[in-house]
Amino acid sequence: MSFANSAEALATMVGNTMFAADVASKDTMGMALLLCAPGHARMRMQVRALHLNGHGICHGGFIFTLADSTFAFACNSHNHNAVAAAASIEFLKPAKLDDVLTCTGQEQVLSGRHGVYDMTVRNQHDEVIALFRGKSAQIPGQVVTP
Amino acid sequence: MSFANSAEALATMVGNTMFAADVASKDTMGMALLLCAPGHARMRMQVRALHLNGHGICHGGFIFTLADSTFAFACNSHNHNAVAAAASIEFLKPAKLDDVLTCTGQEQVLSGRHGVYDMTVRNQHDEVIALFRGKSAQIPGQVVTP
Amino acid sequence: MSFANSAEALATMVGNTMFAADVASKDTMGMALLLCAPGHARMRMQVRALHLNGHGICHGGFIFTLADSTFAFACNSHNHNAVAAAASIEFLKPAKLDDVLTCTGQEQVLSGRHGVYDMTVRNQHDEVIALFRGKSAQIPGQVVTP
Amino acid sequence: MSFANSAEALATMVGNTMFAADVASKDTMGMALLLCAPGHARMRMQVRALHLNGHGICHGGFIFTLADSTFAFACNSHNHNAVAAAASIEFLKPAKLDDVLTCTGQEQVLSGRHGVYDMTVRNQHDEVIALFRGKSAQIPGQVVTP
Repeated sequence: MSFANSAEALATMVGNTMFAADVASKDTMGMALLLCAPGHARMRMQVRALHLNGHGICHGGFIFTLADSTFAFACNSHNHNAVAAAASIEFLKPAKLDDVLTCTGQEQVLSGRHGVYDMTVRNQHDEVIALFRGKSAQIPGQVVTP
Repeated sequence: MSFANSAEALATMVGNTMFAADVASKDTMGMALLLCAPGHARMRMQVRALHLNGHGICHGGFIFTLADSTFAFACNSHNHNAVAAAASIEFLKPAKLDDVLTCTGQEQVLSGRHGVYDMTVRNQHDEVIALFRGKSAQIPGQVVTP
Repeated sequence: MSFANSAEALATMVGNTMFAADVASKDTMGMALLLCAPGHARMRMQVRALHLNGHGICHGGFIFTLADSTFAFACNSHNHNAVAAAASIEFLKPAKLDDVLTCTGQEQVLSGRHGVYDMTVRNQHDEVIALFRGKSAQIPGQVVTP
Repeated sequence: MSFANSAEALATMVGNTMFAADVASKDTMGMALLLCAPGHARMRMQVRALHLNGHGICHGGFIFTLADSTFAFACNSHNHNAVAAAASIEFLKPAKLDDVLTCTGQEQVLSGRHGVYDMTVRNQHDEVIALFRGKSAQIPGQVVTP
């Protein structure tokens, strides 16, 4: 197996392992993990009644949570434990009941222990509804034992 | 009733009205609204199993969601509809199962349609676990008809 | 002339007009404008003695200023007046005396009056030294009369 | 001398030492350091022709720079070398020629090596023109040898 394939295979294993244990993302929010690749991840969540706030639209915190989960998979994909140190989000459009939100995220830079990752959340019409930037910090340990 | 009392009473009414309809904050997340005053709000959430991510700690997205809800009450407290345009968060300490998180938020500036609000999330040991800054934009409409 | 060429030509004219009047960027900081295209800009600045702070490295505020200027050209490139509403920056590496810093910026989304623009600042070794994200708001008026 | 007085005296010494060497803030921008106390600083800058951008108002980068300098004094005030890791700014009002800008900053939290500091920039009418939040990281070394 080539090194590139190994990195891909490892990221997939990290993603599956983390997601299986992630009650918040999987069970509470109802997200699906579509892809976990080196420095890259994609997740999906359909807006359901449980996600609605007092204005009857998806709570912005849950749009953030979708992006934050995707960020977690992207920044742990190298199999070095990493945590979110900070994040910012721009809310561009509301998300409504039954909308299908897909978040795609990409590592922008990984410099020593710190990385910067950009996430884009789109709805089923391919409209950008939020832009998220996360800063990660690596901590000791690995997600899986290769 | 003095004007000051009116503003306080109106903010309380706004808070109760919004919270009663907020499935995401009240039912899904299990938050309590402790205070909604002019430009000011306080909420509480205990970390339960449903909040845990793959590392077995409270999902950062839910810490953000607690702060984002508190922000929503603070920026709607004047009874002009307002939405979150953007937000940023610094994660300072993890939150663990059974921790009781209290978020307090304060309007820093309200200039025309735009406001800036700062939220502080503390645990039951009064340790700051996150700092959140939200930017609001007023939109047409009112929360309640006074 | 095709529409595409017109948009390019207009952006170039906007860039030249704004830069000619920009004492801060041109004269005080010593920046050069390399490109102003629709939703896109590139600027360059060499670190000189006047840019150094008390640690003897380039003041972070001037790295921000390079990115903020580039952002201004990118978000005004459509010839609708636009101002910076907010910005954030990650400082990844220091910049030293004589370093040549190049900032490239790209529109990520333009939705109604508001846009999000990402800038990357690199040194002469092509190392990323800062990542900047700016939020613009369009205001009435045009930069040039086409 | 009491411990409190020592901390105050040390912060003053740190401020004076850093500022004397800070060509960017002192000479290029024309700032004055009004106060450097433990976790706290205040600086002032008058908007002059050299600060104006292509719209004839103070370059936002220089408003950021004023806040970033004040942040540097606040986060180095304990005499542990600290650098800016990231910052965000909200621009609320423009600053015009001859305006006198005063930035006051305060440590919000210092947790291990990392701190969060909030700066408020006001003009001579006491209007808030910008809010800045900076994240610091301590690095080895001291500013002065006590």
